[in-house]
Amino acid sequence: MQRSERFIRLVKTFVDQPNVALSLSELSDGLDTAKSSLSEDVARIRNVLEAYGAGSIRSIQGSAGGVKYVANVPENRRLAFFADLTRRLSDSSRTLPGGFLYMSDVLGDPDVLDVSGQLLATAYQDAGANVIVTVETKGIPLAVATARYLHLPLAIARRELRVTEGAALSIHYISGSQRRIQTMSLSKRAMPARARALIIDDFMRAGGTAAAVKNLLSEFSAEVVGTAVLLATSEPADKLVEDYRALFELDPIIEGQPVTVRTHSAWMSSDSGDGE
Amino acid sequence: MQRSERFIRLVKTFVDQPNVALSLSELSDGLDTAKSSLSEDVARIRNVLEAYGAGSIRSIQGSAGGVKYVANVPENRRLAFFADLTRRLSDSSRTLPGGFLYMSDVLGDPDVLDVSGQLLATAYQDAGANVIVTVETKGIPLAVATARYLHLPLAIARRELRVTEGAALSIHYISGSQRRIQTMSLSKRAMPARARALIIDDFMRAGGTAAAVKNLLSEFSAEVVGTAVLLATSEPADKLVEDYRALFELDPIIEGQPVTVRTHSAWMSSDSGDGE
Repeated sequence: MQRSERFIRLVKTFVDQPNVALSLSELSDGLDTAKSSLSEDVARIRNVLEAYGAGSIRSIQGSAGGVKYVANVPENRRLAFFADLTRRLSDSSRTLPGGFLYMSDVLGDPDVLDVSGQLLATAYQDAGANVIVTVETKGIPLAVATARYLHLPLAIARRELRVTEGAALSIHYISGSQRRIQTMSLSKRAMPARARALIIDDFMRAGGTAAAVKNLLSEFSAEVVGTAVLLATSEPADKLVEDYRALFELDPIIEGQPVTVRTHSAWMSSDSGDGE
Repeated sequence: MQRSERFIRLVKTFVDQPNVALSLSELSDGLDTAKSSLSEDVARIRNVLEAYGAGSIRSIQGSAGGVKYVANVPENRRLAFFADLTRRLSDSSRTLPGGFLYMSDVLGDPDVLDVSGQLLATAYQDAGANVIVTVETKGIPLAVATARYLHLPLAIARRELRVTEGAALSIHYISGSQRRIQTMSLSKRAMPARARALIIDDFMRAGGTAAAVKNLLSEFSAEVVGTAVLLATSEPADKLVEDYRALFELDPIIEGQPVTVRTHSAWMSSDSGDGE
């Protein structure tokens, strides 16, 4: 087998499976090559990816060993993403009654989901999460995209009890935006043992929903390693959850005034991908 | 730049962006190479991928031209997926009251989502869809995964009207499993003009939900190019929608009896990826 063929197959295998531990024997499967040249190839791939900020190949410590591809969004694509989405979200035709912003198109855009998922995965790469948790409905696509790049299972908290979820734990909480008592429940089977959860949602105003998810997770004795949303409001500045990340920040919407959406400060610096 | 570096970067670019049209100038960006050698590289990548059934690079006809990566799941991975999931879903501890099967873990499993999404994307690659439509909640992750591989926007029909969806079209329908009148609504802004929708859901029994989505879409003058679910029941054999695909088939659940889940017949043959 020619070296070019090995590179094509190896890169395809890696990029198809972000954050998946692959042993050298799994990687060599079908490649008909010696382990020494395979290691050289992997090192070469790592160097090329790192050189243009497109992720890396990490060695996994421990008895099992192996390597895994860790995604990253190259600088130019990241800048284009923030510029493009800031512009799209600042469109004042998006304003809805109650100071909301129409975002369903953005939350269903495959490119937005893919880049956002990679950015959040990079930020929480070393946070040690073993499950992604979201609340239905609008945060689910972003949670799926993030779970793909962290290679973690996804658990979806429901607003109503459903027979299809089996035994579930439920809590009640007061929704900040709707000012009424709401229910949130999570299937017992959906949560891993000793869960370390990364909470993903689409939008945060005061953080009441995220705080409720945290309460619900505490009923599972789960630890929350972080909370991330696509868009958070700048006010109130003090949210009900402390350790959150937002990709974008929205100023209060005043009817007749332009909408202001900016890249959240945490993503302006070049070290934005350093994890919690 | 060495040829190995070009291969690494090109394969990464393609696999990162399934079904995205890329011009040769976009591909050559940062590669510092002549268009002729780039075309040779792309042809080489196409040959290697096709040789082991891992997708292809297609040329796009028309004035814009360009190429795109089209995903496919290699035979061995596809067989392993069907064998593994048939076994997991046949676990009788999954049975729930009312003849339901607990599937939330599977529907939140990143590997299941990724392979299922690729299989459905391959099946509908040439169906001409321009939007993926699903109904909240459990079908959303599979819809996101399919939308990623077809590079299509996702629109989520809601069970209740929500302020965040803006103006919406609603219908009422009778749910087969719950035997009561339900509402389903879809944001007007979420649908493209001249929509051609692929409906994705997690589960189908009689097909009432899918038929309701179809009715809702007809209010948008949208065409439905197909309906696909992860799991359909073998009974009733006559569903309320005709042109559907399921990855798996479930026999009626009888308490105390083993659960029978099999690979749906449409995926048993080697030509399962031929589209509608």
